[in-house]
Amino acid sequence: MAAAADGGTHLSGSVLIIGTGLLGTSIGLGLSARGADVVLSDLSPSTEAVARDIGAGRLLSTAGEGFEPALVVVAAPPDVTAPLAAAALKDWPAAVVVDIASVKSAVLADLRERDADLSRYVGTHPMAGREKSGPVAARAELFNGMPWVICPPEEAAPDAVRCAEALAFDLGAVVSRMSAEEHDASVALTSHLPQVMASLVASRLQETPPQSLALSGNGLRDVTRIAASDPNLWVQILSGNAGRLVPILHGVREDLNRLIRTLEDPVADGARLDMAQLIAEGNAGQARIPGKHGGPAQTFVSFTVLVDDTPGQIGRLLTEIGEIGVNLEDLRLEHASGRQVGRAEISVLPGRVNDLVSELSARGWKVVQ
Amino acid sequence: MAAAADGGTHLSGSVLIIGTGLLGTSIGLGLSARGADVVLSDLSPSTEAVARDIGAGRLLSTAGEGFEPALVVVAAPPDVTAPLAAAALKDWPAAVVVDIASVKSAVLADLRERDADLSRYVGTHPMAGREKSGPVAARAELFNGMPWVICPPEEAAPDAVRCAEALAFDLGAVVSRMSAEEHDASVALTSHLPQVMASLVASRLQETPPQSLALSGNGLRDVTRIAASDPNLWVQILSGNAGRLVPILHGVREDLNRLIRTLEDPVADGARLDMAQLIAEGNAGQARIPGKHGGPAQTFVSFTVLVDDTPGQIGRLLTEIGEIGVNLEDLRLEHASGRQVGRAEISVLPGRVNDLVSELSARGWKVVQ
Repeated sequence: MAAAADGGTHLSGSVLIIGTGLLGTSIGLGLSARGADVVLSDLSPSTEAVARDIGAGRLLSTAGEGFEPALVVVAAPPDVTAPLAAAALKDWPAAVVVDIASVKSAVLADLRERDADLSRYVGTHPMAGREKSGPVAARAELFNGMPWVICPPEEAAPDAVRCAEALAFDLGAVVSRMSAEEHDASVALTSHLPQVMASLVASRLQETPPQSLALSGNGLRDVTRIAASDPNLWVQILSGNAGRLVPILHGVREDLNRLIRTLEDPVADGARLDMAQLIAEGNAGQARIPGKHGGPAQTFVSFTVLVDDTPGQIGRLLTEIGEIGVNLEDLRLEHASGRQVGRAEISVLPGRVNDLVSELSARGWKVVQ
Repeated sequence: MAAAADGGTHLSGSVLIIGTGLLGTSIGLGLSARGADVVLSDLSPSTEAVARDIGAGRLLSTAGEGFEPALVVVAAPPDVTAPLAAAALKDWPAAVVVDIASVKSAVLADLRERDADLSRYVGTHPMAGREKSGPVAARAELFNGMPWVICPPEEAAPDAVRCAEALAFDLGAVVSRMSAEEHDASVALTSHLPQVMASLVASRLQETPPQSLALSGNGLRDVTRIAASDPNLWVQILSGNAGRLVPILHGVREDLNRLIRTLEDPVADGARLDMAQLIAEGNAGQARIPGKHGGPAQTFVSFTVLVDDTPGQIGRLLTEIGEIGVNLEDLRLEHASGRQVGRAEISVLPGRVNDLVSELSARGWKVVQ
């Protein structure tokens, strides 16, 4: 386990959290559970009161005259992160200040313009979240096992970087380090591009007749799942990384134009070859996405088992897979349209699939694929 | 259950299957298992021999002089479906002929041009498949619980339509009926659009450095999953429905241009509002996708449980959920990058979530969200 045991932290001294939404409050809960002294502050008195009431820490307003945090975590929306971090660096001249905004270069550039003391600043990005927001949705375990990217500026002192890493480490996150530029280039491709493309697909469904939508399958559901995102947050994220995202979208537009040209005249010379090329390029890109546990791209084998949609059926299936002694690498449930029948897609290592399929069939399970 | 019991069919008479790839052979296996007389034919002698050897039926070449099918199923690639269906209507003047190509209007138009006897023809589309192809990958249960759309032309005799429906019904599919035009308009939006958008996203990853791809999360994986598709098949599908798909892609291009404009100058008047509008339009479209079992859009509540990545852990969790008496509505596994820790996202009906979370926590499970 990378996380510190409950009751101990790698951080020392008090931690001030500015912004007690989902992420700030989750950090407070996680650090408090490990015994750290956590102090909370939010523009909204009711929001910070909720965070305190659920155990994320005590309030800054009651912390008293001599309070000096060793670490300040700015956990505010991206738009106000830089001014709040600059103010924190001034207000607490002995503290390390980290922020957790999901774009990093714009925050750093803004802090440079404000002549902030960057030796005590470290930008970070915990890649965790949930669909709900606000302190009530916070969870101490939110960051457990999730990536947390640390982006120190050149000026950052080694102690400041160690402090930022200790924060992520104490919360059980998987720490990696890169520059703000590298981070923003990476998330433009791996997070912001899929986000906007999902929205563009979902947007087309606004006027679709219900009988057409009845043919929706897992393909459409997968592609559009993240389209159910908060517009206000995403405007801040996309604007904050626009310089990285625009060239990628220009590339998408070129490919889209290429595709539209082939489809407008599919019998033209070379049209079908070009169409096949576009799909093959997608194959090549998709195959590069790393698999489970950050390892090489997925090499599991999948098959499907039909299950009744009643309580305990899936549990029984997975218990039997455990009894057979095969480790489940991935699992997805799929539901038959209009029927109380489910399909469980089971992924395992290729070497185990034949044994497992025979054994499950022998136990009476209907294995489809 | 909608399916006929094993050993009985709603179809009567012999069924000839032309094309013994994944779908044709799966149809043969399913009908043979229900006791039907199935006869197989494929351009490739080795392919049809494999289909016979795994029990999908007997070969046409050995069927003898007097053989007369009651139903011919053309299960060939979309490109050759119309000529094969026209030939079958001529060769077997007493038989109903159905095809299973995933585009329907182009096949019907081609058959009209060939002056085929459309009173005996019904276009259909079983919405099932798997990543593998060929007869070896075939499964008798492939269509169980999956949608199967029946698209009779105006000229189709009622008996021919009943025969096509009996085929889908015998294989356990969920039958729906619409015109070829309606079908093609529906799948252009619900299947072909997400397919090409997934390819366009995945294509951008071809040159990405591995350290950037290491930040890939479930969002990117979901959006690009179907980009791993066969280029040759998809060229046929997209070309066959180009007339429907192109206007949709024009709409996507307009939205993409709108988005690029706002990102090229995010501080311009109205840019942020327009960006928020684009994301909100995606929210609205996504919310219209029907949920499980073809019911209204999903209204389940999700939370996450941390699990060790060892055999039987997920099974134990789901068994306990069954014991608590709550029906699992959906389940997804997520794996922590670089760590042997998994996260199980559990979806249940809103009324049951609080009880379930308290009970699981009391049993020692770490509930995250």
